[in-house]
Amino acid sequence: LAHRIGWPRRFDRKELPDMIKTSRAPRIRSRALIDRGVRKLVVKDVALHQLALVRDVRGNLRVGEIGKGLPFVPRRYFVITDVPNDKVRGEHAHRKLRQFLVCLRGRCSIVVDDGKRREEVVLDSADAGLYVPPLVWAVQYKYSADAVLLVLASAEYDAADYIRDYDEFMRLVRRR
Amino acid sequence: LAHRIGWPRRFDRKELPDMIKTSRAPRIRSRALIDRGVRKLVVKDVALHQLALVRDVRGNLRVGEIGKGLPFVPRRYFVITDVPNDKVRGEHAHRKLRQFLVCLRGRCSIVVDDGKRREEVVLDSADAGLYVPPLVWAVQYKYSADAVLLVLASAEYDAADYIRDYDEFMRLVRRR
Repeated sequence: LAHRIGWPRRFDRKELPDMIKTSRAPRIRSRALIDRGVRKLVVKDVALHQLALVRDVRGNLRVGEIGKGLPFVPRRYFVITDVPNDKVRGEHAHRKLRQFLVCLRGRCSIVVDDGKRREEVVLDSADAGLYVPPLVWAVQYKYSADAVLLVLASAEYDAADYIRDYDEFMRLVRRR
Repeated sequence: LAHRIGWPRRFDRKELPDMIKTSRAPRIRSRALIDRGVRKLVVKDVALHQLALVRDVRGNLRVGEIGKGLPFVPRRYFVITDVPNDKVRGEHAHRKLRQFLVCLRGRCSIVVDDGKRREEVVLDSADAGLYVPPLVWAVQYKYSADAVLLVLASAEYDAADYIRDYDEFMRLVRRR
């Protein structure tokens, strides 16, 4: 797995545009665990899932399914493309929604933050999916021009499920 | 929808490599129906579903969810890339599996065949998803070099669900 996925790097706030308001969470550097295709990150319940790759003369096929890489049954998907490199997406947490992010082409970076720990994940391979549970603040940035980011989500769109204010996010996390 | 998706063209067997053994089904040319974002094809229960596109300065987002474009709850997904242009994929039907195909980048063609009618669909936009129900023979070909084909499937992999022999497919279709 190591050589195929982008390993999370220690978070460096200087690299982030000012609009990312996640600077209050302390930084913690820690070695993550690898267990049967799932690599837990230091941020609570966030994990990288290894996905199967089948290569043959007819091209490459990557697959994820319930029980093999895909951690929940999706009811919604969205695909993000054509993001200018200086733009940031995401910048919110969810109350209940679970998400699974796979960068199918190109690369982008995801910063995940549980209110105590923060980590940046470079997604640059369709062989790994990033699981983001509820109550994790997530920000996407550093998109390459050709990036195609697939997000599978556990529920239909619900505006009330979004937490868009970082202070509110911290209140909810502390109450947990 | 018309200008955004590749409209199915009448099937022309001469364009297909010899390996496609679907020549027995009669050709029927017919106008398809368009109804609320869903365009039914002439092949039984096959349909093109329009997907929402959200454009803003942070890039483009395409979305499908249960009740809005996505016709079933997926339990498996796979992504096909790097297909040499002369190669053909698919060439089978399923007994029970439902599939939803979206070409996220580049283009490819899907031939669908219900044993009576056949149609070729050019997928060249992430704004449309092709719903392929059980007992429809499907073949994918004419991949562009940059094509990224996402397939959402209604169940986990099951080798017994595949019908790989066209004669067996025709027997099952006639019995239906």
